[in-house]
Amino acid sequence: MGLTFKLIHSTDAGGRRARLELPHQAVETPVFMPVGTAGSVKAVSQDVLEALNAQIILGNTYHLYLRPGHEAIRRMGGLHRFISWPRAMLTDSGGFQVFSLSQLRKVTDEGVRFRSHLDGSSHFFTPEHSMDVQIALGADIAMAFDECTEYPAERSRAEESLRLTMAWARRSLDHFRAHRHEVPWHEHEMHEHGAPHPGSAWVGSQSLFGIVQGGMYTDLRRQSAEQLVEMDFDGYAIGGLSVGEPRDLTLEMIAEVLPLLPPDKPRYVMGVGYPDEIEQYARMGVDMMDCVLPTRAARHGLLFTSEGRMTIKNRQYAEDQLPPDPNCNCTVCRRYTRAYLRHLMQAGEPLSATLNTIHNLAYYLAIMERVRASLAGEKGTGGLELLDER
Amino acid sequence: MGLTFKLIHSTDAGGRRARLELPHQAVETPVFMPVGTAGSVKAVSQDVLEALNAQIILGNTYHLYLRPGHEAIRRMGGLHRFISWPRAMLTDSGGFQVFSLSQLRKVTDEGVRFRSHLDGSSHFFTPEHSMDVQIALGADIAMAFDECTEYPAERSRAEESLRLTMAWARRSLDHFRAHRHEVPWHEHEMHEHGAPHPGSAWVGSQSLFGIVQGGMYTDLRRQSAEQLVEMDFDGYAIGGLSVGEPRDLTLEMIAEVLPLLPPDKPRYVMGVGYPDEIEQYARMGVDMMDCVLPTRAARHGLLFTSEGRMTIKNRQYAEDQLPPDPNCNCTVCRRYTRAYLRHLMQAGEPLSATLNTIHNLAYYLAIMERVRASLAGEKGTGGLELLDER
Repeated sequence: MGLTFKLIHSTDAGGRRARLELPHQAVETPVFMPVGTAGSVKAVSQDVLEALNAQIILGNTYHLYLRPGHEAIRRMGGLHRFISWPRAMLTDSGGFQVFSLSQLRKVTDEGVRFRSHLDGSSHFFTPEHSMDVQIALGADIAMAFDECTEYPAERSRAEESLRLTMAWARRSLDHFRAHRHEVPWHEHEMHEHGAPHPGSAWVGSQSLFGIVQGGMYTDLRRQSAEQLVEMDFDGYAIGGLSVGEPRDLTLEMIAEVLPLLPPDKPRYVMGVGYPDEIEQYARMGVDMMDCVLPTRAARHGLLFTSEGRMTIKNRQYAEDQLPPDPNCNCTVCRRYTRAYLRHLMQAGEPLSATLNTIHNLAYYLAIMERVRASLAGEKGTGGLELLDER
Repeated sequence: MGLTFKLIHSTDAGGRRARLELPHQAVETPVFMPVGTAGSVKAVSQDVLEALNAQIILGNTYHLYLRPGHEAIRRMGGLHRFISWPRAMLTDSGGFQVFSLSQLRKVTDEGVRFRSHLDGSSHFFTPEHSMDVQIALGADIAMAFDECTEYPAERSRAEESLRLTMAWARRSLDHFRAHRHEVPWHEHEMHEHGAPHPGSAWVGSQSLFGIVQGGMYTDLRRQSAEQLVEMDFDGYAIGGLSVGEPRDLTLEMIAEVLPLLPPDKPRYVMGVGYPDEIEQYARMGVDMMDCVLPTRAARHGLLFTSEGRMTIKNRQYAEDQLPPDPNCNCTVCRRYTRAYLRHLMQAGEPLSATLNTIHNLAYYLAIMERVRASLAGEKGTGGLELLDER
């Protein structure tokens, strides 16, 4: 068992305030996970992420496999050590990127042949290979290798895609169980510290989550969830959302799947979303979410604030002496003005991406902190073991 | 009088350990000043600069005049407030950039007409206009408007260039003296705090430095220095160096000029240099230096270390688990490996520029800290008033 999921409080609306104990860090949920594609949450340092109280970040298997390579990372003690991130980490399976970024991909039951978006070199990914790569990276949580069904998709296409994802889930789990002991950090950590990372609940191994697919067909989604639960993963993700479908469809799929998942295991909705979305899903019972939106939008000058979205490059901010968000307490809002952030972007200064990213991440993380506090106080069950937020 | 220069100790070799008291901050000299061209030391935040113990940074008049404009900055309370930098600041005159960056420039005795490198728009800079812009920016120290003589230059060309620079120095000083009270921050600061910035010696106004030119002709350099000293500036810079000439010529020009400058005023060599250069010149009696080298080289992956220059992108560092400089105590060297820094650069991650810049600046600032400690302890005069480094 790689994780412990302690429910602290469940609301009548289905929301859950919990603590997810992982080898490197205990994570207070619901949690938003910043995306660190190639071993860096773009434009911010690990020191800054720690100061922002980011509890868990993502790494992308596809990117790290191509560069610097998972075997190199294994030799260097795993991804945590390679990027100097002592807290929790999750890697995706590489599936989503193989399907969205690579060229000339060819899918068979066995796996996917594709060409790198970097240099056109040819690679073959199977569920087993994805597990090997993710074990070498050694994140606290790995994801089953899946096919993310595109939107829109005909029913026959969604059925075929789901068949593949379910077969790959089985193979992912079998290979993961046989090889999870090969994770590079266990030995390292024990050797260097003689004890688990301070503050973590040492449970010693990686976890694997299954991914519910099924396109926008509720019966396929149900079938997918039931089959995965039968396989008994450490946690469950809902994938294939936020791929262009309308918001009410996203919501419908999440609402359909959540009740089918075991209450004592973490639930993760992949790739969402806007600030109001992450709050909404968290209140429905989603424990984990990730999205490139706050970081990518930041690099394009889009700030999320308590007063709505702000395009910081707009002329109206040229001499605006207010902080980006007067209701935000982040280091950027405490120190800099809209006028300065606009200038940095106009002038093409690298600091622009950094400061915008810090604010957007702070905004997202503050939402989840508020939601956690709110969930803990709502009508429902539990609450005896309400723990301090760190 | 805009500054106070307190000599703490002078060595027999000419080196000086001193304290330069400026309106916003007292600066321990010799000092290296990071360059913040467009209102940002590229890729690092003001918080990081403070943590690095940067005492004084540069702003570029040419860049800030073009974008966002000096009148906008004046309306926002000056450059210190605009970029949220409470410590000391210096602006160049814009002359160097007008001559090196702009297009279609036409020089007359009156001033320089040039086209912006950003949009081709036409502008006319005179010594008076440079002063107006620098007063609006409101740095602690402004620089006289000069022509930086190119290298190599015939004697007749160097003479003509120097004639212009000397006439412009006179006009700069006259206009500055007549308008220095228009600096935007005095009123603001007094209004907000009712007192000077904590830790600073409040002296209430900007200072103006003259710039010694004369190409690589020692007699022209002497003539330039003597004329400027006669005009009685608040400090003296040596410009027109590091423009492509051999190192021994740079050294010869500095050695020729330094003895002609008044010992009770700060001496600033512009645009230098490599780590060994800044140490060498500081030991000869140069109090202030600035250079884009540590920050620009960082963005190209060139690190300065106690073991020499390191091209971090080289393959040899792919799995190198050492810090960039094992003898460096900066936040980057304490946390990250060469392998990680190499990966960030290979992957085009924005964090690459940030971490490389932090290390290079830390390395440069640590050199000057060592030199200050060393100068204070060497054989010479003074030392009674030896002050703690902050």
